Amino acid sequence: MVILGIDPGTATTGFGLIRVVGNKFKAVQYGVITTEAHMPMEKRLLKLHHELSNLIDTYKPDHVAVEELFFNRNITTGITVGQARGVILLACAEKEIAVYEYTPLEVKQALVGYGRADKNQIQQMVKRFLGLTALPKPDDAADGLAIAICHAHYHQTNTRRTRYDQLH
Amino acid sequence: MVILGIDPGTATTGFGLIRVVGNKFKAVQYGVITTEAHMPMEKRLLKLHHELSNLIDTYKPDHVAVEELFFNRNITTGITVGQARGVILLACAEKEIAVYEYTPLEVKQALVGYGRADKNQIQQMVKRFLGLTALPKPDDAADGLAIAICHAHYHQTNTRRTRYDQLH
Repeated sequence: MVILGIDPGTATTGFGLIRVVGNKFKAVQYGVITTEAHMPMEKRLLKLHHELSNLIDTYKPDHVAVEELFFNRNITTGITVGQARGVILLACAEKEIAVYEYTPLEVKQALVGYGRADKNQIQQMVKRFLGLTALPKPDDAADGLAIAICHAHYHQTNTRRTRYDQLH
Repeated sequence: MVILGIDPGTATTGFGLIRVVGNKFKAVQYGVITTEAHMPMEKRLLKLHHELSNLIDTYKPDHVAVEELFFNRNITTGITVGQARGVILLACAEKEIAVYEYTPLEVKQALVGYGRADKNQIQQMVKRFLGLTALPKPDDAADGLAIAICHAHYHQTNTRRTRYDQLH
């Protein structure tokens, strides 16, 4: 089973692809999709949609897991991240892939075991779970991998299979 | 010149298409794109993207004008409306149409002349500007027409040609 984890953003969207075999996780690919601030917003969204669609075509993930927004961020951030999420969800729907959503708290609990873990602890656990020789960089790519691992965890243990739409 | 005005939303996106000849405005088409709450969010965005793309193919607008969000709404609304905006902006980028953005205040000022106009005053002015025999229904369609008229006004008088990306 291949899982694509996504940490959405207009400027930088982090992604991490993992393969799950039994209870082993292996990193397939990870990185970031970036868009430049001077570009018109609709062109930035077009680039994000195009590159994400290419990723899906190349790696054919079975599931996509997306990070839910921080609700303590401000409304303007909510709108721009919402726009990025919109084209990400659209790309998944076009490829008929089910989308799952996890809060930052759930990601931390799945990886470190408690919800107040810091970024470095998350990265260390991503490295350990995937048997990497170094911390995955940049941070947004590590976040994408963390979300994919989080989904694999909840999916395997069957403790949570809430689809995005059931939350809203 | 054909202008497509859009009032974005996940459940209901209002749209209004007008043709501008000289200083005359004519309604070409208006209505709403709706999606059902029980559908997965990604499928709702897929439907919105599909129907909007069909509208653009059919009526070939020269410009698209989108209503900016109310910043006093809550963050959750910001995210879901942001998601709808994301696929709307994407559809415009795919068709290479320039997107313009107007605040509710600008729409009210363009149509009624002052920023505290109520919904009914807006609808009455939409009816008058377009020479309609009745108020355009539903409300979201009237909002779409109002945004299109607003853009025609600012574009003609050249008082404001701010593209969406220059605002963010």
